Amino acid sequence: MFAEIISIGDEILIGQITNSNAQWMAQQLNLIGISVKQISTVGDNREDVIRIFSEALQRADIILITGGLGPTNDDITKQCLCDFFKTKLVFNEQCFEDVKKMFSDRNLGMPAINKGQAELPENCIPIRNKNGTAPGMWFEAPPQPSPLGREKNQQQVLPNGEDIGGALFVSLPGVPYEMKAMMSDFVIPELQKRFQRNFIVHKTVHTQGIGESALAEKIKEWEDSLAKHEIKLAYLPSPGQVKLRVSLNGNDQKKITDLVDEKINELRQLIPEYIFATEEFGKEPETLEKVIGEILRKKKKTLAVAESCTGGYIAHLITSIAGSSDYFNGGIIAYANEMKINVLKVDVKILEEKGAVCKDVAEQMSDGVRKRLKADFGISTTGIAGPTGGSAEKPVGTVWISVTSDTEIISEKFNFGNNRERNIRRASLSALNMLRTLLEKHS
Amino acid sequence: MFAEIISIGDEILIGQITNSNAQWMAQQLNLIGISVKQISTVGDNREDVIRIFSEALQRADIILITGGLGPTNDDITKQCLCDFFKTKLVFNEQCFEDVKKMFSDRNLGMPAINKGQAELPENCIPIRNKNGTAPGMWFEAPPQPSPLGREKNQQQVLPNGEDIGGALFVSLPGVPYEMKAMMSDFVIPELQKRFQRNFIVHKTVHTQGIGESALAEKIKEWEDSLAKHEIKLAYLPSPGQVKLRVSLNGNDQKKITDLVDEKINELRQLIPEYIFATEEFGKEPETLEKVIGEILRKKKKTLAVAESCTGGYIAHLITSIAGSSDYFNGGIIAYANEMKINVLKVDVKILEEKGAVCKDVAEQMSDGVRKRLKADFGISTTGIAGPTGGSAEKPVGTVWISVTSDTEIISEKFNFGNNRERNIRRASLSALNMLRTLLEKHS
Repeated sequence: MFAEIISIGDEILIGQITNSNAQWMAQQLNLIGISVKQISTVGDNREDVIRIFSEALQRADIILITGGLGPTNDDITKQCLCDFFKTKLVFNEQCFEDVKKMFSDRNLGMPAINKGQAELPENCIPIRNKNGTAPGMWFEAPPQPSPLGREKNQQQVLPNGEDIGGALFVSLPGVPYEMKAMMSDFVIPELQKRFQRNFIVHKTVHTQGIGESALAEKIKEWEDSLAKHEIKLAYLPSPGQVKLRVSLNGNDQKKITDLVDEKINELRQLIPEYIFATEEFGKEPETLEKVIGEILRKKKKTLAVAESCTGGYIAHLITSIAGSSDYFNGGIIAYANEMKINVLKVDVKILEEKGAVCKDVAEQMSDGVRKRLKADFGISTTGIAGPTGGSAEKPVGTVWISVTSDTEIISEKFNFGNNRERNIRRASLSALNMLRTLLEKHS
Repeated sequence: MFAEIISIGDEILIGQITNSNAQWMAQQLNLIGISVKQISTVGDNREDVIRIFSEALQRADIILITGGLGPTNDDITKQCLCDFFKTKLVFNEQCFEDVKKMFSDRNLGMPAINKGQAELPENCIPIRNKNGTAPGMWFEAPPQPSPLGREKNQQQVLPNGEDIGGALFVSLPGVPYEMKAMMSDFVIPELQKRFQRNFIVHKTVHTQGIGESALAEKIKEWEDSLAKHEIKLAYLPSPGQVKLRVSLNGNDQKKITDLVDEKINELRQLIPEYIFATEEFGKEPETLEKVIGEILRKKKKTLAVAESCTGGYIAHLITSIAGSSDYFNGGIIAYANEMKINVLKVDVKILEEKGAVCKDVAEQMSDGVRKRLKADFGISTTGIAGPTGGSAEKPVGTVWISVTSDTEIISEKFNFGNNRERNIRRASLSALNMLRTLLEKHS
């Protein structure tokens, strides 16, 4: 059972907007166990729209279409559906009442152009739109005669032998909140009733501190062991982080969930230092700053940061979490050496002898800010963010990071490469992961 | 001349990520006058990948592919390209040197799995990747024999009669910053050389401090005057900013450039307080933090920031600019009131009487940080970022911003709404724009 998502609209093809509708719809379909085979975007052009309908019919059983349902001349989806199904528009009284009510509820007169919104292809079931004027359309019967001579196949018959006919076409408005309400209220429940057979479990493991290929080598044996359970693994790298997505498909929801959890537990034991969170599909994304906030809150501890090369980015990540004022005391962005000396009490002799980018300065900064701001934990960074300022001994990308509690201090030297933006992001995530490790050891 | 964008990756089909690559690429192609016919996303599945290559070849002349080039087992694009072009992978010494250098520059050992990154289909021209290990690939010659019996057509011959052969296939990594650099440095200039017939002028005017619809009302007459010159205008809103893209197409480059410049000058006179930069297409994007850095550098002045509700984001923006250590002394992230009192010398009585979110505290913070860090200019923010912490008198989103020099202090109260992330971004950009106004007045 495959779905295809078709987005219609020039605004996507010229890159004016991101196709966030398709992402949301794909997620909703996957959550009820329907795999998406393809996502296609075409413009407001009759030939392309009808062609993509025909192509989708060859590879998918459920075809979800968004866009092109507005009242203006550039909206052609409804007429294309009529041409495709060899049918005509008919006036729908119920839909007209909905459109009229939409305007009267807002004390607005209805522009005449909106009467056309109540005309729908004769062979569709209307899907009511409580947030806008364009009804959705549900085309259930197989096209007669099928435009592609589509044959009945296995996938069109449910396990109980019930023949479900040809592919389903569902057409919805492109306005996100209108589309989402119609999907949640009508389309998804209907699809679940008809097609839900298999369950899909996706879980995402978040790692920090190891690159994609080094990670792949380290977990090779574990990765190989997934194959015999038909578990799929995907690597999703971004600067400073690699996510691993573990997916399994099956008809016993508990069994597949348990199997995925078991495998993730094995992985956690294999590389605990790199894994900071496991995320369930469809839930809020996990981030290091969120995980750290939760630990600090649970342990009733506070944090302060002293940033040189990361220039406030660590503080920004931490304070992007709602409620962070409960555990974040604040920070010092010590770009000038004077701040390191006067506010953070870094030893001026060490600064002169070794320069600002060294272990001693990093440690005096993390400890200095922890004490100065009366926090339980301190983080510091000092390095060369680039693109200039490097030397043979300390090339661009060299960063010392230190994290400290009242009993312990940990420091590490890194090289994050010569792109300033990624360097700052990598250094910040590494600092947060070092803090996480220290926090988890701390009672 | 049509392009098709093909995105390969299960993570898009399951709705885990939005296809922002396709949007960006579509925009870049449109900006050089190449229309995108279709955007297609398929999974990491050989059959689907090869099918979509064949389909795209039937409707497009330029086929841009992203994704599936990593070193791990789930990345199959390269093998699919080999199968499609009936060729094989060969080892490329130059690419191998690039991959090795990528690791050695960061003092990392190269995992063996990366050697495969230097194997490329025999018929491609490699596109070097300065930000990652996967080279891009440029397939210039028509497939021989064409898998679809593609015929030469009008569109394959330039107006000067030069035969440009079959469709172009370009395969790039899915990691956005790797893909974007390769597009900007190589693919777009190459496409321009080959296919650009008309000249297109695009300039982008950056505004801050006014919303999309208020701006549209304010410049309505000016906008109407564009039509008679066939100048196109696009509004590109993002939190805290609206960009206006002005585009004109024609065969006399000087004439269209002059016309666009004239119109932009009219706009500058109309709304000077909101416009902070004008950007030429293909140049580095303009940002407020960059503009401010340039002014500070030119005037040989320094800056310090005291952030409460923006939590380090202003400092992060400023330090994201290379060389900012020349004019940025540093910052204080005064989340806890204690820091406001002890480090910034905010009057404890005012804090007790009026709370932290008021004009007096904002002004004492901006002036305090300016003096404490011996800077010429100071910025401060104090507010309620949300989503909780608001009151009837000071709802979530209330922010006081102050900017100061040694002779002047300016403060303003805003309400940025209740979304924490957008609130932080809007407050930071507003603070930077207030500083810009002050800086420009300053001799």
